[in-house]
Amino acid sequence: MMILNRRILLSTLALLPALRSTSASAQGADPLPSWNDGATKQSITNFVARVTTQGPDFVPMDQRIATFDNDGTLWIEQPMYVQLAFILDRVKALAPQNPGWKTKQPFQAVLDGDMKAVAASGEKGLMQLMAVTHAGMTSEEFSKIASDWIASARDPRFKRPYTELVYQPMLELLAYLRANGFKTFIVSGGGVEFLRAFAERVYGIPPEQIVGSRMKMTLETREGRAVLVKRPEIDFVDDGPGKPVGIETAIGRRPVAAFGNSDGDLQMLEWTSAGTGARFCLYVHHTDPDREWAYDRASSVGRLDKGLEAAKTRGWTVVDMKSDWRRVFAFDKEQSQ
Amino acid sequence: MMILNRRILLSTLALLPALRSTSASAQGADPLPSWNDGATKQSITNFVARVTTQGPDFVPMDQRIATFDNDGTLWIEQPMYVQLAFILDRVKALAPQNPGWKTKQPFQAVLDGDMKAVAASGEKGLMQLMAVTHAGMTSEEFSKIASDWIASARDPRFKRPYTELVYQPMLELLAYLRANGFKTFIVSGGGVEFLRAFAERVYGIPPEQIVGSRMKMTLETREGRAVLVKRPEIDFVDDGPGKPVGIETAIGRRPVAAFGNSDGDLQMLEWTSAGTGARFCLYVHHTDPDREWAYDRASSVGRLDKGLEAAKTRGWTVVDMKSDWRRVFAFDKEQSQ
Repeated sequence: MMILNRRILLSTLALLPALRSTSASAQGADPLPSWNDGATKQSITNFVARVTTQGPDFVPMDQRIATFDNDGTLWIEQPMYVQLAFILDRVKALAPQNPGWKTKQPFQAVLDGDMKAVAASGEKGLMQLMAVTHAGMTSEEFSKIASDWIASARDPRFKRPYTELVYQPMLELLAYLRANGFKTFIVSGGGVEFLRAFAERVYGIPPEQIVGSRMKMTLETREGRAVLVKRPEIDFVDDGPGKPVGIETAIGRRPVAAFGNSDGDLQMLEWTSAGTGARFCLYVHHTDPDREWAYDRASSVGRLDKGLEAAKTRGWTVVDMKSDWRRVFAFDKEQSQ
Repeated sequence: MMILNRRILLSTLALLPALRSTSASAQGADPLPSWNDGATKQSITNFVARVTTQGPDFVPMDQRIATFDNDGTLWIEQPMYVQLAFILDRVKALAPQNPGWKTKQPFQAVLDGDMKAVAASGEKGLMQLMAVTHAGMTSEEFSKIASDWIASARDPRFKRPYTELVYQPMLELLAYLRANGFKTFIVSGGGVEFLRAFAERVYGIPPEQIVGSRMKMTLETREGRAVLVKRPEIDFVDDGPGKPVGIETAIGRRPVAAFGNSDGDLQMLEWTSAGTGARFCLYVHHTDPDREWAYDRASSVGRLDKGLEAAKTRGWTVVDMKSDWRRVFAFDKEQSQ
């Protein structure tokens, strides 16, 4: 039987000098130009060299699975998760068709911009907001709404589209890993269909390599056409202990490298490091209030507390954003140490 | 930002004459040698030519998603689903440690080989059998048990490992689609971890491209190590209307081609054909009692009834196994029409 698959094609490809010269690692060019030289950068390049070179730590290409958290790891998550900004904007956009919301919580709180009252509405309030913004429509309708919003929304501090507030060093890291035969996945607590609205264009990660939280869906016929309708009910939460479950369900292999920034990523990093053979775990530590934000143990969004302790104990790499990154965003001027 | 991903590598690859000559379609060699010439084979090659050639039906490589049912589409499913044979064998293997099963249904029926009584135990009985054979262990332990069984079990009629009872024409079709830039997925009612125990080796389909039914899993610590434990509770049934849901959840794109053999695949084929642009749907019709089996409308396993009607109405391709396939299994002698 002839099995000619992508992995075989790619293995063949690795033998072609002409093509390899187009990869970021060829000709001595630095594949990670936005990373300052030092122990952090070296821990990454050393790991990649070890697992891609014949020797005791070599990992075959089909097992080079790398998983990335999204919020706070690949793009900004302060002052609030981008998806929460989407929810608030959607409630405002839908308010004229729902006059009753003016006097009904948690909608009233959203319309009044009273974030304390939104928070006070708790999980039940959040589910009500999810129900009107993420359900009752087809998956195609949702994708269109999310894409349109992503194209027009602006971050309140940087006044730029969120898709420009992705970390340039992490984009280089994704490309560097892929050039070295890794398959890169997003494993996020965010909604999988929200992520798919921008991840391929922005990160080069196709929809089938995105794992996220999700609402239940059912198949229906509308106007004679089969459609998938999103239901106002959580199907799966891909956060904390959910991340290894999401990885096993969707990928079916344990990652050899995992990247996160909060305690919600801790189980993914532990699951990754508990495998046999060479493994790499990295936390992005937000330490740069000038170029981005500084937060960790006391933050309500993206808290990094237990994770910092685990990283110390286990020798995981911790990125000090301020000193390790030459620039944070593509639009930053380069800054050496 | 430099995004060098696999799809770009593959696009580049398509430009290389040296490498293309290693593909099945080069040099005029027939990429589908186990298919007899005729309308069925031509419908496949015509479709692939249309979507891979610049023109109104061209489909970019990243959208060339093809989904395949497994049981009855890629390998044998008579006289019973292979996974059911696994369940029965496991119950027998575990019986010495469970003396009470001798007098307790549905276990007694399994141990007595009384398939009527097994069937009579219904969904509740099946769940009890699933609970003792597919749960209460880690995902790694289950994978090992499934792999070992696959390596040793033999089909009762052909006296061969099930992994030899895969359809040679379908293996060629998988390879042909991949050589033309398609990403091939399994979308099966079978258990995803059971499928992963053999699918990469046998079909060249990696674990992350397999969608199936699944039990719930939870993250636990056992002997200081993070493990995923399979729970005796169904999480998702990837059959019938579940198939489009499984596809949207795991792949996030509508397939352009879908392949099945039973009414349980009908919604997957309808979901595929309801997309805009060129689409291809194919049913394998089991019409060869000598080389394999003959069954359709009246079969309890793999019933194909509504699907045959839909195929007629919608102009889907229906493989007549007896006349369209030169051989069914790799070990068959070739047979022309």
